[in-house]
Amino acid sequence: MFDLKSYLERRQKSVEAELERMMPAETTRPVSLHRAMRYSVMAGGKRLRPILCLAACEAVGGRAETALLPGLAIEILHTYTLIHDDLPCMDDDELRRGRPTAHVVFGEATALLAGDALLTLAFEWLAQSPVPPPYNSSQLVLELATASGSQGVIGGQVEDLTAEGHAPDADLVDYIHRHKTAALLRASVRMGGMAGGASPAAMEALTQYGDCVGLAFQIADDILNVTATAEQLGKPVGNDEQLKKLTYVAVHGLDSSRQKANELVASAVAAIRPLPGDPHPLIALAEYMVKRAS
Amino acid sequence: MFDLKSYLERRQKSVEAELERMMPAETTRPVSLHRAMRYSVMAGGKRLRPILCLAACEAVGGRAETALLPGLAIEILHTYTLIHDDLPCMDDDELRRGRPTAHVVFGEATALLAGDALLTLAFEWLAQSPVPPPYNSSQLVLELATASGSQGVIGGQVEDLTAEGHAPDADLVDYIHRHKTAALLRASVRMGGMAGGASPAAMEALTQYGDCVGLAFQIADDILNVTATAEQLGKPVGNDEQLKKLTYVAVHGLDSSRQKANELVASAVAAIRPLPGDPHPLIALAEYMVKRAS
Repeated sequence: MFDLKSYLERRQKSVEAELERMMPAETTRPVSLHRAMRYSVMAGGKRLRPILCLAACEAVGGRAETALLPGLAIEILHTYTLIHDDLPCMDDDELRRGRPTAHVVFGEATALLAGDALLTLAFEWLAQSPVPPPYNSSQLVLELATASGSQGVIGGQVEDLTAEGHAPDADLVDYIHRHKTAALLRASVRMGGMAGGASPAAMEALTQYGDCVGLAFQIADDILNVTATAEQLGKPVGNDEQLKKLTYVAVHGLDSSRQKANELVASAVAAIRPLPGDPHPLIALAEYMVKRAS
Repeated sequence: MFDLKSYLERRQKSVEAELERMMPAETTRPVSLHRAMRYSVMAGGKRLRPILCLAACEAVGGRAETALLPGLAIEILHTYTLIHDDLPCMDDDELRRGRPTAHVVFGEATALLAGDALLTLAFEWLAQSPVPPPYNSSQLVLELATASGSQGVIGGQVEDLTAEGHAPDADLVDYIHRHKTAALLRASVRMGGMAGGASPAAMEALTQYGDCVGLAFQIADDILNVTATAEQLGKPVGNDEQLKKLTYVAVHGLDSSRQKANELVASAVAAIRPLPGDPHPLIALAEYMVKRAS
């Protein structure tokens, strides 16, 4: 049996150790900015995106270390989206993972700029990530920029804000989830594939896996927002409902949402069965991503 | 005699035509986001950074077209810094180039995200910019990310905000100007050099030129903020003084500031004399950048 718990612990530890090593020091000028960047990046979290990146690299037969720097870049890009999402002009959240959000601690201007700087640093790291042929670091940059830009994560975020209070709409919720959440998870897996020198067929399999787990993850999140306790979430329960967020559960109901999440995981697992490397971490990760909501 | 006026007009025209062609259409989803991005990018301006990039490419003997996409990337990155600078939690400006700022027209959330999306799109474009050996597009990404990150433009911006109301301090104003303004102008010139396949010696000359004109440009800006009319600036005169901004003029006085700007231009021009290509545009641009303030 594959032991996911110890795998996750080991991976989280190496991701956090490398983040600790790579992030600009708090003593580097401007001190307030670097403190804010580190505060948000080192705030814990599951480190799911870099771990998916490492696991995808191994699943195509690559060495996990090659995917570490790309994985860190994805993680700090993810952190920037959280900082900007929490700002008063966006979701106006004061708590994240049980701690005060960046703008509460450092002020709005510094939080805004810390987010900008993390986004920029992500591309700096990718430009310095060596990947094996036929890939190159520009492809990593292109993949992450496309996934996180105006027709990726940011596009999903805009539609999500616009959709607050909107009548249930299956197409719209699908657009939001695929862009706001799934795009970055998909890119994490594909960038891991690049770092592992994936064949075109292997890359295609990883892309299918990424699409499926990406959507499944957001559906699970919508379910949890209704069913979990505040302690489990680290933020108020039922927040989505209060903000009149357009969620999968609001459109399709709880039972259909659970069924859809499970179907997506089954498709994800089926897609990666033929990969040349070790598929067990990716399989266990896909199951883990919805299990927390079942 | 080199005719700068017609050179600038020709270059501005080609930069704007290509921006028009490359920016995501306003009809592309999410429509509000793409409208905000285009509103800010197509708001006019001197297009100095892409023009410096093109001129540097030609000065090392390259074809200007190779530097066009990198130049556009620099311009939209510059636009993102303006959008975020204008936000209420930063400088809280309602006018830019005589028009309402992005957050006034589209709201804070959309303006914030439009800035994020332009920053991201800049790297997407660089990753797709072919440059001749020994350079590659990852080096363009690395150059722009370093110049615009926490130890570049953003670092300067943070120190600038912190320095408001601060006692005159020559070291601090030097740090702010070199980071907030000069870093991106320097990168513009160096990236043009990469697109032109500059030799190590030529790249060194361009770097010196970029450092000098970068600082000279910000000093000229400080001078103009005191001496120009509101109509010339497109924003209120004496704004810096009112905000108690730390400027070169506030620290060194008007006469010393003018002298320093002229010395820097002379050094910039001297540095690029030996370049293998056509140095005239770069020479004329350096003189133009301070002339507006003399």
